[in-house]
Amino acid sequence: MPLPSSVTVHAPATIANVGCGFDVLGLALTAPYDIVRLRRTDQPGLTIRHLDDYNLPTDPYRNVAGAALLALLREVPEPIGFEVEITKGIRPGSGIGSSAASAAGAVVAANALLGSRFTNHQLVDLAMYGEAVASGVRHADNIAPAIFGGFTLVRAVLPTLDVVPLPPPPLWVAVVHPQFEVKTQEARAVLPAAVPLPLAVRQWANVGGLVAGFLTHDNALISRALEDYIVEPARASLLPGLGDARLRALAAGALGGGISGSGPSIFMLNQDEATAHAAAEAMGSVYQKMGIAFHLHVGPIASEGARVVSAE
Amino acid sequence: MPLPSSVTVHAPATIANVGCGFDVLGLALTAPYDIVRLRRTDQPGLTIRHLDDYNLPTDPYRNVAGAALLALLREVPEPIGFEVEITKGIRPGSGIGSSAASAAGAVVAANALLGSRFTNHQLVDLAMYGEAVASGVRHADNIAPAIFGGFTLVRAVLPTLDVVPLPPPPLWVAVVHPQFEVKTQEARAVLPAAVPLPLAVRQWANVGGLVAGFLTHDNALISRALEDYIVEPARASLLPGLGDARLRALAAGALGGGISGSGPSIFMLNQDEATAHAAAEAMGSVYQKMGIAFHLHVGPIASEGARVVSAE
Repeated sequence: MPLPSSVTVHAPATIANVGCGFDVLGLALTAPYDIVRLRRTDQPGLTIRHLDDYNLPTDPYRNVAGAALLALLREVPEPIGFEVEITKGIRPGSGIGSSAASAAGAVVAANALLGSRFTNHQLVDLAMYGEAVASGVRHADNIAPAIFGGFTLVRAVLPTLDVVPLPPPPLWVAVVHPQFEVKTQEARAVLPAAVPLPLAVRQWANVGGLVAGFLTHDNALISRALEDYIVEPARASLLPGLGDARLRALAAGALGGGISGSGPSIFMLNQDEATAHAAAEAMGSVYQKMGIAFHLHVGPIASEGARVVSAE
Repeated sequence: MPLPSSVTVHAPATIANVGCGFDVLGLALTAPYDIVRLRRTDQPGLTIRHLDDYNLPTDPYRNVAGAALLALLREVPEPIGFEVEITKGIRPGSGIGSSAASAAGAVVAANALLGSRFTNHQLVDLAMYGEAVASGVRHADNIAPAIFGGFTLVRAVLPTLDVVPLPPPPLWVAVVHPQFEVKTQEARAVLPAAVPLPLAVRQWANVGGLVAGFLTHDNALISRALEDYIVEPARASLLPGLGDARLRALAAGALGGGISGSGPSIFMLNQDEATAHAAAEAMGSVYQKMGIAFHLHVGPIASEGARVVSAE
């Protein structure tokens, strides 16, 4: 069967950190998603076009998909290139893995055009070059679920990338994206350089509890373990409405949640679809009262990551 | 059916911390174990007798089983007491939960005499008073597996004890107990007061990885995740032979391991019985060359904790 010359990929939004799991845990959503279309060319190099209104850079070295594809092309002996068309379904700066989705979608599309010569682990490693363009840090906590789907643990980035893909629990995610900006670099700057050992112990007890709860489908344990003692307290002041949004979501039945990535989006995990909608509405009502525009997203945890939806 | 007036309990040795899981993870062994015999008396108060040569205190307020039983009796309205006979199968100061076993065995025995009115969670909470006598800290990381068996996560001690019992992986444990003393208080004193955030992140990534590996029976992941970046480096100087013992055990096929509790015992997890014996012998050979006497223990992770073996 000949390889396709052009493919279209849907690359999902993702929740990084997931409460207590700063820099290591991630979940894939079913929506929103970016649409990344790649056409293989015999001319080396990349051309990037955005079919949206976000005015993102199209210089390959400054575009997250471009940086990821340049890294990938360095591993490809053939003198080829790609024409890239990106339609952002995920708003940049929303904190639900917008840059990760474009980078993940691009390398998954390229891999399909190249006969699937890269493993998922290698694709994560390549897509992380896109994250470096977006935030200055080659982190994998959004990229891993954007590629593997489901629920992922990034056990290590250095010296060797070690992503552990795990079967996702049957939960529904509610996300509110209030329309203000939290710069990733500012969100990193407020983090403590060091953590008191007793607090670190409580945090890793929760990480262990959350992983156990996800794998054994113990929703009460998930609810208790979602608490973040370290990162969220440091970042809370950057996110007006966070405390209220959580309280109202919990009152609506959510199991728990917190800041998605470095914000401003807030996520809540829920046992079913109806509760997730109620939690989303409850969070939205907080921002409505504050006069801050917002978007809501509700969906199950996605078992799949970025995937080819058409090829020709 | 009338309640028994006397019961005998076997209470197992346990591995606390389990590599990366300082203060939160624990495993139960099948052997060695303490034998705790309790007879109910109509006289309030405790009498404690040790049927071994360790010369442990028999004053109830200074004996770990005594302190746990005094805490339990405060919750019992009837004016009763217990005659306690303890035969230590676990050497005091070995680092495999010797004090936890006696305390756990005592409260499990008392509960059997009282018609099982306490839950396992309540028994852990009571037995922790014994740990406070032994080490000054009311910690649960040995008590929890000594009572629940298997593999346990102590998600929180305060404000509410939250022990998560998890199905144990089908692994074999090798333990070497070199005959030197590591005082628990000294082992606590060398710990850092604070941990750089990036190191704490690596540690909780490993805790998540180890829990996931245990629950999905992924031995390669368990092997990668057992590494402790924080506590073992601080304590290594208190444990001559540790580095060598690990290297030799790994060469013999062990998945990984580290200090058991605060030492001096060292544990290794292994995929099968033969490898566990080889790992134990390999560790023993290190201490033989150093001229340090040692004991070896090999057995599967025990699915049961302290249990009644006879009642009358």
